[in-house]
Amino acid sequence: MKKSIKIVAPATVANVGCGFDVMGFALPYPNDELVIKLGHHKGVRIHNHTPYPLPNTVMSNCAGRAAHAYLSAIGRKDLGVTIHIHRKIKPGSGIGSSAASAVAAVKGIQLLLGRNDSEQTLLQYCMQGEQAASGAMHADNVAPSLMGGFVLVRSHAPLDVISVPCPTNLFCTLVHPNIEVKTAAARQMIGQSISLRNATAQWGNVGALIAGLYTSNYALIGRAVHDTVAEPLRAQLIPGYRTLKATVMKAGALCCNISGSGPSVFALSTNESTACAIGKVMSHQFQQQNIECRTYVSTIHQQGAAVY
Amino acid sequence: MKKSIKIVAPATVANVGCGFDVMGFALPYPNDELVIKLGHHKGVRIHNHTPYPLPNTVMSNCAGRAAHAYLSAIGRKDLGVTIHIHRKIKPGSGIGSSAASAVAAVKGIQLLLGRNDSEQTLLQYCMQGEQAASGAMHADNVAPSLMGGFVLVRSHAPLDVISVPCPTNLFCTLVHPNIEVKTAAARQMIGQSISLRNATAQWGNVGALIAGLYTSNYALIGRAVHDTVAEPLRAQLIPGYRTLKATVMKAGALCCNISGSGPSVFALSTNESTACAIGKVMSHQFQQQNIECRTYVSTIHQQGAAVY
Repeated sequence: MKKSIKIVAPATVANVGCGFDVMGFALPYPNDELVIKLGHHKGVRIHNHTPYPLPNTVMSNCAGRAAHAYLSAIGRKDLGVTIHIHRKIKPGSGIGSSAASAVAAVKGIQLLLGRNDSEQTLLQYCMQGEQAASGAMHADNVAPSLMGGFVLVRSHAPLDVISVPCPTNLFCTLVHPNIEVKTAAARQMIGQSISLRNATAQWGNVGALIAGLYTSNYALIGRAVHDTVAEPLRAQLIPGYRTLKATVMKAGALCCNISGSGPSVFALSTNESTACAIGKVMSHQFQQQNIECRTYVSTIHQQGAAVY
Repeated sequence: MKKSIKIVAPATVANVGCGFDVMGFALPYPNDELVIKLGHHKGVRIHNHTPYPLPNTVMSNCAGRAAHAYLSAIGRKDLGVTIHIHRKIKPGSGIGSSAASAVAAVKGIQLLLGRNDSEQTLLQYCMQGEQAASGAMHADNVAPSLMGGFVLVRSHAPLDVISVPCPTNLFCTLVHPNIEVKTAAARQMIGQSISLRNATAQWGNVGALIAGLYTSNYALIGRAVHDTVAEPLRAQLIPGYRTLKATVMKAGALCCNISGSGPSVFALSTNESTACAIGKVMSHQFQQQNIECRTYVSTIHQQGAAVY
């Protein structure tokens, strides 16, 4: 049995406009990097080597709780597991920072122990880990972070996730402005019920987005990434969001929407030069408001969590 | 210009479980058969040759209102158009009887006049016709009746419909029990808002059904045809529905649900013998309750409204 492993789990864009809680895709960067070591102590320990003040008790830390859930389920709570968090997606960024930690921990332990649990099985423990941060059990970040690519969550109970193909020329521009949005608070904004009219529009768009991905119909993808449920409420959390979106669409994006519960914003386009131009537009918009930001341009990342 | 045309428009199964107001597919039978004649009078006339007491004023009859809407839009209200309704899907059956009439009228007039309006354009007038019966403008019956096959309505305003492929071995068994369900009343049952939890489950299933259709994944299609919104409320409109569904699933169906707003019920399966066995089970269930019924077994009909 190996004693140590270095593993990387990617950031993810969840919701993807219309697919609140059911869709997400992976990005090649940023990502979480964990080194997981087996030792002679008992239970899980966390060492945070990043500049972020992460929760350091096992059950309140995403990686810790996910590792604990996995080890409990396989009857190996006796194992001594030390998780060194070396690189971390900034918490509260809206690109699945807690999901990536949970996924890296579970996937790393699986590889260390040489187990062959299915992805659907592993996802259960990843979701428990992510719950430590978001308060909700959902798989739209953990699933693409574990599996890579574009993922649809048909059902959470029982968990039923589907990998959906992506057109090769689908580029994502992501901007992460340096403002804070609390996932739990952003979820509360939506409330417990929605209008049937908005709901119907939403599931029409979800179906159309899946159809667009299967047929590489970029225009349809663009029309379908439209959110009647979360974006209208959460837009106010991101300063200048409406102007940003309008400018990004003018720069040639197929679509633009909030990544997860924000504050990150993503746009899709069909070529790298447009994707880069969109990144410049995004940066400019936030800089004009004196908000620092980072932009990332890539295709959809087909690789999930893996040994580095 | 031709003076007369005989046209047939197919019955349709709308909603398809999860896709309330956004999905539907066509059946080869039953169908509406119209003969449309151009004459020297002005405006639209309706002649009902069926045993059903259809509305006979133009604006309250689905075919009449659709024809009127189309002729108005193309500036040909001067034309004399007589619509003879020779065969009619029984009104209130839940398989798109009003949609088929509207579609046959519009498609027939288009062919008579040799016009090349797009399907999306024609659908606008078909929807206006169907509205005469259901009170609501929606395209999940008219779109598959006009276009054939399986159709997803991404958006109603602007209208955006997508043809989705069907696996060759997808069989539909449909039972139409001789009980009455008023579409408008069945719509009112659902109310104006739904829980976010049910809505999220619904759009997960819509996405999964589209994925299942593109990949011929029959098991996924079966899991995805699951309705958290309308079926739980409308089940009570169909005597013995829960028992019927359980028996149909036991007979090998992939899924079973209410067609449109009922009372017809459909089940999908992967071969003709299972589909026929399901038909017998369905008939038996209704006969035991002294309810007359008709069953239909077919694949999804790829042909929309056409000259007979």
